[in-house]
Amino acid sequence: MKLRIIVTLKPGVLDPQGKAIEHALGSLGFDGVNGVRAGKIFELDVADATSDEAIDEMCRKLLANTVIENYRVERQ
Amino acid sequence: MKLRIIVTLKPGVLDPQGKAIEHALGSLGFDGVNGVRAGKIFELDVADATSDEAIDEMCRKLLANTVIENYRVERQ
Repeated sequence: MKLRIIVTLKPGVLDPQGKAIEHALGSLGFDGVNGVRAGKIFELDVADATSDEAIDEMCRKLLANTVIENYRVERQ
Repeated sequence: MKLRIIVTLKPGVLDPQGKAIEHALGSLGFDGVNGVRAGKIFELDVADATSDEAIDEMCRKLLANTVIENYRVERQ
Protein backbone atom coordinates (compact mmCIF):
# COMPACT_ATOMS: atom_id res chain seq x y z
CA MET A 1 0.00 0.00 0.00
CA LYS A 2 1.41 3.37 -0.99
CA LEU A 3 0.94 6.25 1.43
CA ARG A 4 1.74 9.90 1.11
CA ILE A 5 2.31 11.70 4.40
CA ILE A 6 2.43 15.45 4.20
CA VAL A 7 3.96 17.33 7.12
CA THR A 8 3.47 21.09 7.29
CA LEU A 9 4.14 23.70 9.91
CA LYS A 10 1.09 24.68 11.95
CA PRO A 11 -0.43 28.04 11.09
CA GLY A 12 1.24 30.70 13.20
CA VAL A 13 4.58 28.90 13.40
CA LEU A 14 7.32 30.96 11.75
CA ASP A 15 8.62 29.46 8.51
CA PRO A 16 12.02 31.02 7.67
CA GLN A 17 12.57 28.62 4.76
CA GLY A 18 9.26 29.63 3.20
CA LYS A 19 10.05 33.31 3.73
CA ALA A 20 13.47 32.91 2.12
CA ILE A 21 11.90 31.22 -0.91
CA GLU A 22 9.27 33.97 -1.14
CA HIS A 23 11.96 36.66 -1.18
CA ALA A 24 14.10 34.71 -3.64
CA LEU A 25 11.17 34.37 -6.05
CA GLY A 26 10.64 38.13 -5.81
CA SER A 27 14.34 38.74 -6.51
CA LEU A 28 14.12 36.47 -9.56
CA GLY A 29 11.38 38.70 -10.95
CA PHE A 30 8.32 36.59 -10.17
CA ASP A 31 5.61 39.01 -9.09
CA GLY A 32 2.42 38.18 -7.30
CA VAL A 33 3.80 35.61 -4.89
CA ASN A 34 1.93 36.37 -1.69
CA GLY A 35 3.12 33.55 0.49
CA VAL A 36 5.18 30.39 0.58
CA ARG A 37 5.11 27.66 3.22
CA ALA A 38 7.62 24.84 3.07
CA GLY A 39 6.87 21.33 4.26
CA LYS A 40 7.91 17.72 3.91
CA ILE A 41 6.43 14.79 2.13
CA PHE A 42 7.11 11.13 2.79
CA GLU A 43 6.10 8.44 0.35
CA LEU A 44 5.78 5.15 2.22
CA ASP A 45 5.32 1.68 0.83
CA VAL A 46 3.77 -0.32 3.67
CA ALA A 47 2.17 -3.75 3.98
CA ASP A 48 -1.53 -3.77 3.08
CA ALA A 49 -2.38 -5.04 6.57
CA THR A 50 -0.96 -1.91 8.23
CA SER A 51 -3.66 -0.38 10.44
CA ASP A 52 -4.63 3.27 10.49
CA GLU A 53 -3.55 3.39 14.13
CA ALA A 54 -0.04 2.18 13.24
CA ILE A 55 0.25 4.79 10.49
CA ASP A 56 -0.90 7.47 12.89
CA GLU A 57 1.65 6.31 15.45
CA MET A 58 4.47 6.43 12.86
CA CYS A 59 3.59 10.05 12.18
CA ARG A 60 3.36 11.04 15.83
CA LYS A 61 6.47 9.16 16.95
CA LEU A 62 8.85 9.84 14.06
CA LEU A 63 7.69 11.73 11.01
CA ALA A 64 6.11 14.85 12.48
CA ASN A 65 6.82 17.03 15.48
CA THR A 66 3.23 17.53 16.58
CA VAL A 67 4.14 20.51 18.76
CA ILE A 68 4.77 22.64 15.70
CA GLU A 69 3.68 20.50 12.74
CA ASN A 70 0.48 19.06 11.31
CA TYR A 71 0.41 15.90 9.26
CA ARG A 72 -2.01 14.50 6.74
CA VAL A 73 -2.13 10.95 5.41
CA GLU A 74 -3.22 10.31 1.82
CA ARG A 75 -3.78 6.80 0.54
CA GLN A 76 -2.96 6.18 -3.10
CA MET B 1 -4.54 31.01 -6.22
CA LYS B 2 -3.15 28.29 -3.97
CA LEU B 3 -0.61 25.91 -5.44
CA ARG B 4 1.00 22.83 -4.03
CA ILE B 5 4.38 21.97 -5.52
CA ILE B 6 5.70 18.55 -4.67
CA VAL B 7 9.41 17.92 -5.23
CA THR B 8 10.65 14.34 -5.05
CA LEU B 9 13.93 12.64 -5.91
CA LYS B 10 13.96 10.95 -9.28
CA PRO B 11 13.72 7.17 -9.26
CA GLY B 12 17.21 5.73 -8.98
CA VAL B 13 18.63 8.67 -7.04
CA LEU B 14 19.82 7.54 -3.60
CA ASP B 15 17.70 8.85 -0.75
CA PRO B 16 19.66 8.54 2.53
CA GLN B 17 16.98 10.46 4.47
CA GLY B 18 14.32 8.02 3.33
CA LYS B 19 16.55 5.05 4.14
CA ALA B 20 17.23 6.43 7.63
CA ILE B 21 13.50 6.86 8.26
CA GLU B 22 12.83 3.34 6.99
CA HIS B 23 15.38 1.89 9.41
CA ALA B 24 14.13 4.05 12.27
CA LEU B 25 10.56 2.84 11.73
CA GLY B 26 11.83 -0.75 11.85
CA SER B 27 13.72 -0.03 15.09
CA LEU B 28 10.55 1.43 16.60
CA GLY B 29 8.78 -1.85 15.94
CA PHE B 30 6.78 -0.96 12.85
CA ASP B 31 6.88 -3.97 10.59
CA GLY B 32 5.98 -4.12 6.94
CA VAL B 33 7.57 -0.84 5.88
CA ASN B 34 9.04 -1.70 2.49
CA GLY B 35 10.25 1.69 1.39
CA VAL B 36 10.34 5.36 2.28
CA ARG B 37 11.17 8.26 -0.01
CA ALA B 38 11.48 11.75 1.41
CA GLY B 39 10.56 14.87 -0.51
CA LYS B 40 9.59 18.50 -0.15
CA ILE B 41 6.31 20.30 -0.52
CA PHE B 42 5.83 24.01 -1.10
CA GLU B 43 2.46 25.68 -0.64
CA LEU B 44 2.40 28.86 -2.68
CA ASP B 45 -0.16 31.62 -2.67
CA VAL B 46 0.21 33.35 -6.04
CA ALA B 47 -1.78 35.94 -7.98
CA ASP B 48 -4.62 34.42 -10.02
CA ALA B 49 -3.06 35.84 -13.20
CA THR B 50 0.13 33.80 -12.78
CA SER B 51 0.70 31.77 -15.93
CA ASP B 52 1.53 28.09 -16.05
CA GLU B 53 4.82 29.01 -17.71
CA ALA B 54 5.78 31.27 -14.81
CA ILE B 55 4.96 28.54 -12.29
CA ASP B 56 7.02 26.07 -14.27
CA GLU B 57 9.91 28.50 -14.37
CA MET B 58 9.76 29.03 -10.57
CA CYS B 59 10.10 25.27 -10.14
CA ARG B 60 12.96 24.92 -12.58
CA LYS B 61 14.88 27.98 -11.41
CA LEU B 62 14.46 27.76 -7.66
CA LEU B 63 12.28 25.08 -6.12
CA ALA B 64 13.60 21.90 -7.72
CA ASN B 65 16.98 20.68 -8.85
CA THR B 66 15.87 19.07 -12.08
CA VAL B 67 19.08 17.07 -12.41
CA ILE B 68 18.04 14.84 -9.52
CA GLU B 69 14.48 15.88 -8.68
CA ASN B 70 11.03 15.74 -10.25
CA TYR B 71 8.32 18.25 -9.47
CA ARG B 72 4.59 18.19 -9.73
CA VAL B 73 2.22 21.17 -9.53
CA GLU B 74 -1.24 20.72 -7.99
CA ARG B 75 -3.80 23.49 -8.14
CA GLN B 76 -6.17 23.76 -5.17
